[in-house]
Amino acid sequence: MTDPGGPLERRKQDTLARLNQDLDAWVASADRAGNAYLVPLSFLWDSTVFILATAESTPTARNLRSSGRVRMSVGPTRDVVLIDGIVETFSRETVPGDLADAFATKLWDARVGTTRYAYFRVTPRRIQAWREENELAGRDLMRAGRWLG
Amino acid sequence: MTDPGGPLERRKQDTLARLNQDLDAWVASADRAGNAYLVPLSFLWDSTVFILATAESTPTARNLRSSGRVRMSVGPTRDVVLIDGIVETFSRETVPGDLADAFATKLWDARVGTTRYAYFRVTPRRIQAWREENELAGRDLMRAGRWLG
Repeated sequence: MTDPGGPLERRKQDTLARLNQDLDAWVASADRAGNAYLVPLSFLWDSTVFILATAESTPTARNLRSSGRVRMSVGPTRDVVLIDGIVETFSRETVPGDLADAFATKLWDARVGTTRYAYFRVTPRRIQAWREENELAGRDLMRAGRWLG
Repeated sequence: MTDPGGPLERRKQDTLARLNQDLDAWVASADRAGNAYLVPLSFLWDSTVFILATAESTPTARNLRSSGRVRMSVGPTRDVVLIDGIVETFSRETVPGDLADAFATKLWDARVGTTRYAYFRVTPRRIQAWREENELAGRDLMRAGRWLG
């Protein structure tokens, strides 16, 4: 299914531009009891995965580590990118150097300091994007880890 | 603990202005298996509770109904209002008329149409607000359902 220059391709390009430029995502996670949690976190998109970091002691860090799943959004509520992803967790000792270096170049070095941060590598499985309700049809840009179009 | 004209009072007033004026919230919920879900939904704040509505068939509707809890945010990632609340669910037959009328005045009448919507009355238990990291201290505006300050 190709769509060169079509609406799907344009939506994908708009989405990638946002992922490359935006600083923050809304990160939703849940504990085993089914309590949802939500915080804003800075992110890096390296063209295939997202990198997040947050203090190891936070609910988000615990939830992502134990569930291995995340749902996150980038952009305002009327220009939405929604991501469902698989999460791998690293401590500051186990994080791959290139991953932490890339994160530091865009954001900060979460390996240093008295607060222990965890890193999370999020591999997207599904990405959706839409602005207003009229764009809900055709909002799927990635399914099962594969870009459409 | 009173704080007339102080930082806490100003933050509360800024927060109330946002709750009164903004149209959309990010609504995080979770199912019993611990999968987090996240969508933008329009909301009404009536000065004590939030009213949400979404199609009964959606994951958010199912999660809110079964868990009775929500975590939601209003505002951008660097001017955040975060709300933890208790949720009561209504069908379009059981929703109190004044509640649906108030929602319709700001947003739309979710009682009519072929898609069946559920209404959710969210009573906040905790409200936090901050802009950037320097404001994380003092971010609690409501605890255990009571405004501070």
